[in-house]
Formats: sequence, structure tokens, C-alpha cells
Amino acid sequence: MPLADAELARLLDRWPVARLATIAAGGRPHLVPIVFARTGGVLWSPIDGKPKSAAKLARVRDIERDPRVTVLLDRYDDDWSRLWWIRVAGGASLVAGDAGAEAALRAKYPQYATTPLFRAAPLLLRIAVETTISWTATPSR
Amino acid sequence: MPLADAELARLLDRWPVARLATIAAGGRPHLVPIVFARTGGVLWSPIDGKPKSAAKLARVRDIERDPRVTVLLDRYDDDWSRLWWIRVAGGASLVAGDAGAEAALRAKYPQYATTPLFRAAPLLLRIAVETTISWTATPSR
Repeated sequence: MPLADAELARLLDRWPVARLATIAAGGRPHLVPIVFARTGGVLWSPIDGKPKSAAKLARVRDIERDPRVTVLLDRYDDDWSRLWWIRVAGGASLVAGDAGAEAALRAKYPQYATTPLFRAAPLLLRIAVETTISWTATPSR
Repeated sequence: MPLADAELARLLDRWPVARLATIAAGGRPHLVPIVFARTGGVLWSPIDGKPKSAAKLARVRDIERDPRVTVLLDRYDDDWSRLWWIRVAGGASLVAGDAGAEAALRAKYPQYATTPLFRAAPLLLRIAVETTISWTATPSR
């Protein structure tokens, strides 16, 4: 059963982590956890936003080659009646800074008070939401 | 920095949730949360193992067309010094039942005492691990 619209919107605004799938060279899927903030129909994720390995470079290369990405938000709980997920298909691009996106990220993540939002030149992943599908084990009241 | 070998093995054995990326028809990545158990160099995930939408069918179709999958385990924490992830690239196949895998799943997930492991005929996703990459913000002591 899908999540109710209000709950879906709330989770897209507040859930702190998602997993981003891109297509690597050769066609294998690539996966990385991301932080993100939503503004309207766009999800924004900083590149270099928190300490990370060289995986970020793969993500950037993948998107430059193929902008089609999938983003998954989900909750795991030992009580399986509390599971849900939200899957977003989107078109990704790289943007060198966006004041609204940066403000949304700083508002969502107090960690950015002490962690640099960017380590080098500002670079944001912009994901234009194309479709959103959700599922929940237990519809909210 | 990668996780220490012992910690990596412990997490692959005990972490309760992962995200599975497959390649959908047309080439877009597909993502779904999974439960799984490890036996040796194989990750097993039941198809129909917990209440789910029709997404399982997409996963099965994807793997029949292209066995290359990526599996991500990760921990999110508001304290970003506690983040880690493990990314497994593997070759997936569908197996109609495996006693060892089913025992490993039942041992890992007490939920299977009350939730059927399979809703219909037993079907398992078998992921032969090809490469494992990990990252941690803070190496363990």
C-alpha cells in the first residue's frame, strides 16, 4: 500500500538519509548513501558534503555519462509492520552552487554548523524528481 | 578508510538490512531494500520474504535479464563520525530453495517465526560476492 500523501511529503522533507543508484561505466549499478534536501520537485545532495572516500568521483562520472538515477528512502525496523520505502526516479545534473539548496541543506542538517558543506568548490547533485513510488506495511492512521 | 576485516565480516553477517540495485529494462537503476543472510561468499535474500508490493517482480525480471547487482549496507547516524558503508558487487541468480540459506535466514531473523519465509513457492536471490569495498568515518579501536 502506498504512503499517504502528507506522510510521503513529510518523509521526503525530513528523512535524513537516502541511497543513490547510478549506472557505472559498463552498465553495473553503483550505490552510495547520500544526505539530501528537497526543494519543490528537486532533491539536492552535496558532493563532498561529508567525509567520504573516492566514491564521490564515481557518482559524478556516472551522472555525466547517464543522468538517470534512482533514490531510495526506507525505514528498517525489527518490527516488520513498521517498514516503508519511497523510491524516486529522477534526472540528475551537477550544479556549481545554489543558494536555495544550500540553505535547505543547512536547515535540515545541523551537522553543517561544524562540517563543511563543501570541501572544495561548491558542487551539488540536482535530482529532478520524475516519478515517486512508495510502499508501507502499515498505513498511518 | 576501509572497515577492519573482522568488523566487515561481522556487519555482513549481522546487519539486518541492505539495499539492492539492479538494472531495469531500458537501463535505469532499480532499488529496493532487502533482508539477507550470508553463507560463505554468498548473500541470500528471499523473494517474497516479507510483505512487499509488486517491486519484487521487477527485481526478478531485472536479474533474469542482467545478473549484475550491487548491494549496499550502511549505517546512518546523526553523529557523522559514526557513518560507514559496505558496497558489494555481485552476480545474482534465482534459486528455488536452499536449505542452508533458509536456515541462515531463519537464524538471523527471528521474525520468520511468525512471518512466512516464502508466500508461494520458495524462491531465493543468490548473490555471489565478486568485490567488497567499505568505508568508515572512524576506524574501530
